[in-house]
Amino acid sequence: MRALVLTDGGARLEAYRPRPAAAPGEALVRVLKAGICATDLELIKGYAAFRGVLGHEFVGRVERCDVAGWTGRRVVGTINIGCRRCSVCLEEGPEHCATRTVLGIVGRDGAFADYLSLPVENLLPVPGGLADDEAVFAEPLAAALRVPEQAVVPPSGRVAVVGPGRLGLLVAQVLALANDGVVVMGRNRRSLELPRQLGLETGLVADAGSDRWDLVVEATGNAEGFAAALDMVRPRGTLALKSTFAGAPPMDLTKLVVGEVTVIGSRCGPYAPALDLLARGAVRVRPLIEAEYDLTDGLEA
Amino acid sequence: MRALVLTDGGARLEAYRPRPAAAPGEALVRVLKAGICATDLELIKGYAAFRGVLGHEFVGRVERCDVAGWTGRRVVGTINIGCRRCSVCLEEGPEHCATRTVLGIVGRDGAFADYLSLPVENLLPVPGGLADDEAVFAEPLAAALRVPEQAVVPPSGRVAVVGPGRLGLLVAQVLALANDGVVVMGRNRRSLELPRQLGLETGLVADAGSDRWDLVVEATGNAEGFAAALDMVRPRGTLALKSTFAGAPPMDLTKLVVGEVTVIGSRCGPYAPALDLLARGAVRVRPLIEAEYDLTDGLEA
Repeated sequence: MRALVLTDGGARLEAYRPRPAAAPGEALVRVLKAGICATDLELIKGYAAFRGVLGHEFVGRVERCDVAGWTGRRVVGTINIGCRRCSVCLEEGPEHCATRTVLGIVGRDGAFADYLSLPVENLLPVPGGLADDEAVFAEPLAAALRVPEQAVVPPSGRVAVVGPGRLGLLVAQVLALANDGVVVMGRNRRSLELPRQLGLETGLVADAGSDRWDLVVEATGNAEGFAAALDMVRPRGTLALKSTFAGAPPMDLTKLVVGEVTVIGSRCGPYAPALDLLARGAVRVRPLIEAEYDLTDGLEA
Repeated sequence: MRALVLTDGGARLEAYRPRPAAAPGEALVRVLKAGICATDLELIKGYAAFRGVLGHEFVGRVERCDVAGWTGRRVVGTINIGCRRCSVCLEEGPEHCATRTVLGIVGRDGAFADYLSLPVENLLPVPGGLADDEAVFAEPLAAALRVPEQAVVPPSGRVAVVGPGRLGLLVAQVLALANDGVVVMGRNRRSLELPRQLGLETGLVADAGSDRWDLVVEATGNAEGFAAALDMVRPRGTLALKSTFAGAPPMDLTKLVVGEVTVIGSRCGPYAPALDLLARGAVRVRPLIEAEYDLTDGLEA
C-alpha cells in the first residue's frame, strides 16, 4: 500500500509498504480521508521521536475484522491504545497509560496510508448523513470538547481563544455553544477573516488587555501566543493549553502565583458528542478545509 | 520610631521614622513580633519594585483606633487592602483588587517597625492562650491553608511538598491533616531533619520518581524545584505553586499538555482557621523559628 512514513531521514512517501497486520480484536480499516494536524508537523520536526506512518485523524471503512458486525462499516477512531491492565487504564482510560501506543504518534502506524489497524474498542460508527470530509474532524473536535470537560465555561464571562488556526476555531465554536461572547484572538486582521465567516467574535491579541479574561484557551503552540494568553487571564482565571509546544518557553510564574491563575493542560476528548455536533451541523468544519490532496501528494501537503 | 526600610540604595535601618498615620477606620498597631518571609528577601532583590518599610507577618497590640472595641487588643492582620468598590473587591475580596495595597509589599509600610497601621477590617483578635511567637505564624499558615481551598487533597492519594523550608513545612502539616502519607521532599538529607522532627514523612527529590504524584506543592521558589515538582506530578494530577519566583523559568509545557496536568497559583489564605489550628496546637510552628532578633539587628536577620 502507499504510506507517508517518517524515517530517520525525514518524511517520505512509500509506494509498497505492507498493509498493517490486524491483531485479534483489531480491524483493518481502509482510510477514506485523513486530516493534517499541527502535531504531525511537530513530529516531523522531532517531537516525540516517532518513526512510522504519520497521521491520526481519519475516517475509514472497515475492510476486515474478526469481531462480528464491524466489517463494511464507516468509522472514525480514538487514537490511544492502553495496556488495559494498569490502574490508569482501568480507572481513567487509555489516554494516560504509561505504556500506551498512539496512532501515528507513539509506536503505532497512522492514517496517512491506504490502510490502518485499530482495536474495535477504539472505533465509532459514523452517522449515515455525515460526509467523509466532515467526519474526519471527529478527532480534533473531540479534543476541542475536552476544554469544557476540564474547565468551567462561564455563560456570561469573558472567554477568549488565542490562535485562529483550525483547532482554535473548533474550540471557539464549542465554547460558543455555552457562551455567545467568545472572542477569537489573532495577531493580524487577515487571520481573523475565517473566524468572522464562522460567525465568531474576533479581536487582535494586541488589543486584548491584561488580566481581563475569565477563561483563555491557548491554541497557537508558540511561545508568543502562550505569553499573550497568560497575560490576558484575570486573577483567579483559567488558562487552558490545547497545543503541544516544541521546547520549554519561559513562563511568568509570578503572574501565575500572585494572580492565582489555574493552568490546565488539555488533550484528547470525547468522540460521541463530537460526532453528534457534526451530524447536527452545530459546529461548522467545511470552511476549515484549506485544501485536499491525494495521498501521493502527501509530502507537499 | 525604628523601621527597616527598603530604599533605592537597598535595605537600611532608620531610627527616627515617623509613626504611620492611621486614617479613619484604621488602627495604629504596636508590633510585638514580626516574621521574615522569602518574599521579603525577593523584595530586597527587586521583586515588585517596593520602597518603604518591609514586613507583612506580625502580631501586635492596637495602640490607638477610632473604631470602638479595638484599642488594647492583641491582633494579627490580613495584608491586602482593596478599593472596596470594584467588582473584584465586592465579589471576591481585596486579594486581587487591581489597585490594592499590600502591607510591606505594595504601596504600604509594613511590619519591620515599632508601629504599623491597618484598617480594622484587616484585623483579627488573637486567642488568649496563643503566644506571640506562635501567633506571628498566622499569615504564612493562612497561606498554607489556601492549598486545600484550591485543590482536592486525596486522603489516600500520593501527596508531596517539594521544599522543606518554612512555608513548605506549614503546607505539609496542613495537608497531613487530610492525608497522613504526605511526603516532604528535599535536595539533601540534612534539609529533611526538621520535617522528620515534625513527624512528617520525608524523601529526596532525586528519588521521587516521575509521573507518580497526585498532588505536588512547589515551595522552593527556584527553577530546579519547579522543574522537579512538574516532573513528579502524575498525568491529570495537580501542581500547586506556593512560592513567587524571580524571573521566568523555562517550563516543560509538553508534559503539562500531554499529561493534562493542572497548575494552580496559590497565595493568601484564610486567617480564622489558621489561628484556630495554632490555638489547638494542631500545627507546630515553634520548631520553625531559626532565630529571634531585635529590630535593631534587622539587617543582619
